[in-house]
Amino acid sequence: MPAARDDLKHELVRSAPTSRDVARIAGVSHSAVSRAFTEGASISPRMRAKVIEAANALGYRPNLLARSLTTGRSKLIGVAAANLENNFVSHALELLCARLTDAGYQLLVHTAYRDSDVKESQLEELLRYKLHGMVLLTMRLPDKLAECCTREGVPIVYFNRPVSPTGLGFSVQAPNEEGGRQIARFLVEGGFRRLAFMAGHPDAYSSRQREAGFTDELARLGASPPIREIGDFVVATAMTAARRLLARPDRCDAIFCANDQMALASIAVAQSEFGLKVGKDLAVVGFGDVPMASWPNYALTTYAMPLAAMADEAVAFLLNERSPVSERRQVILPGKLIVRESAPARRDVR
Amino acid sequence: MPAARDDLKHELVRSAPTSRDVARIAGVSHSAVSRAFTEGASISPRMRAKVIEAANALGYRPNLLARSLTTGRSKLIGVAAANLENNFVSHALELLCARLTDAGYQLLVHTAYRDSDVKESQLEELLRYKLHGMVLLTMRLPDKLAECCTREGVPIVYFNRPVSPTGLGFSVQAPNEEGGRQIARFLVEGGFRRLAFMAGHPDAYSSRQREAGFTDELARLGASPPIREIGDFVVATAMTAARRLLARPDRCDAIFCANDQMALASIAVAQSEFGLKVGKDLAVVGFGDVPMASWPNYALTTYAMPLAAMADEAVAFLLNERSPVSERRQVILPGKLIVRESAPARRDVR
Repeated sequence: MPAARDDLKHELVRSAPTSRDVARIAGVSHSAVSRAFTEGASISPRMRAKVIEAANALGYRPNLLARSLTTGRSKLIGVAAANLENNFVSHALELLCARLTDAGYQLLVHTAYRDSDVKESQLEELLRYKLHGMVLLTMRLPDKLAECCTREGVPIVYFNRPVSPTGLGFSVQAPNEEGGRQIARFLVEGGFRRLAFMAGHPDAYSSRQREAGFTDELARLGASPPIREIGDFVVATAMTAARRLLARPDRCDAIFCANDQMALASIAVAQSEFGLKVGKDLAVVGFGDVPMASWPNYALTTYAMPLAAMADEAVAFLLNERSPVSERRQVILPGKLIVRESAPARRDVR
Repeated sequence: MPAARDDLKHELVRSAPTSRDVARIAGVSHSAVSRAFTEGASISPRMRAKVIEAANALGYRPNLLARSLTTGRSKLIGVAAANLENNFVSHALELLCARLTDAGYQLLVHTAYRDSDVKESQLEELLRYKLHGMVLLTMRLPDKLAECCTREGVPIVYFNRPVSPTGLGFSVQAPNEEGGRQIARFLVEGGFRRLAFMAGHPDAYSSRQREAGFTDELARLGASPPIREIGDFVVATAMTAARRLLARPDRCDAIFCANDQMALASIAVAQSEFGLKVGKDLAVVGFGDVPMASWPNYALTTYAMPLAAMADEAVAFLLNERSPVSERRQVILPGKLIVRESAPARRDVR
């Protein structure tokens, strides 16, 4: 029946209802509709109820862009993320989205395959939307962006990194240095003697802090300093670094990798290319506790970051912060070492 | 020097420049500034150059929210995504972001941990921003959302799923059915006889199509129908399904999983819990070719989806589409089978 089909199509493509349609149906003035949807505007409860009823009947949606113009700030939170292949980043994004949308905000996301692909000029484009706030899930420190945000009164959350020296805002971090220390104690007490450290990207504060805690604690315990390779937080680079470490004649008996993704890649190489039994011939420790760390083929010993609590703190800051931001604030939330088979508590001497 | 510090702070928190500041510095009228930043507005090249120079000197950013009000459409693309732990989804998001931001658009992203966590009412909130377009990276079909988008003239891209029966828009897909057929031929020709299929979520069109192609081609070749388990596109469920399959006395010699993530989980279980040599005792085939499929501990045979080409098509549609959308359109782009060690071309009879 072609006629019925045309009707359907007409129904589907009819245009969205406007505030004037709502005014007409509710039998009120156009300005009453606008007041009904503005927080704190002067309108009687009865009048507002009439407007809401008509709006619901029509499927009218007040234009949030227009509202943002009046208030000077949108309900948009900018998020800069990179390397979603790392499940720490993708899960942080999911947690932030769940909590912020429940609070009536939406996420304007800029994401790149690698941190090095993040273009600062494109991040600055986000600021054109009069953001309510900004979250940095990238490991680099885009100083100019921090400056722009501060100038425009946009509060920034630095997720697992310190506040930029050129900006103001809030930093929520895992105990990166303390985690590194705990891993040093765990390995030394477990009887591991030839240690290696695989660093992340040289710009990454988290990697530097984990390394500082690890090497400082080893020195304090009188252990030899670790052999060092750079995995760059990139899988292919981490695999190459693992191959270099494992091909050495004085092979290490334990590797601490600055994040889980590099630890999983190292396990893959150790098992498949060197025929090593991870947990017996070689201990591997990560940092983060991503979901895959608990898969049976990895069973990764790792320092669990308090991701959900970190997301909660970030959201609390964004929802409560008054613009303009005028301070630097920082919290470090507790994490804990999770011992699985990839690095047992006692070295199995053979 | 406390004085210098206060100066710095004052500098940091000074408010963003306005169009009036630009007018003052450029020595032009306020309306000239607004015309200079409006495409097609009447203004002399000399006047526009003056305004742009003053704007750059001040770091002035035209308010895109205000611009959107005039044009009736923002430069925002909505994206609904779920299960970023699946690298097919996270990589699609990265590709879309790179291409769309290069074209001057920004992504308003709604993401959930699981497809079942996506709240349709929150997706509809995205429409308040007068979206230029919408991309669905979720596997469920939110019919009501499709209806709303169509009514409001927002073009939808259905990524790897067909256009909703209640909506209009553009669908870009991998050859899901054909991929399933190729995998059936590959396994039968390779000498595998006891086949299993692990399905994704029952609502997922892609899983149903892959299964339809697989089972239909097996029947056509006179092979026995596969044993069937449901992995739901969720890692924990897929691991349970793999355990059930592998514990059977008449154990299969090959499993085709409806996506790579479930195939990787099956390999983990087969190796670590059943002591099986994948590629020898058991063949595992996936669908997608996520980055981890090529890791040496998986070496997953899989049907590679044309992800980059799919993102290109999606972006081309979004940039060229005129609102309102008035049709359903669909393209299927070619993929190819990638043979690695997890399922060799010939069964190694022992």
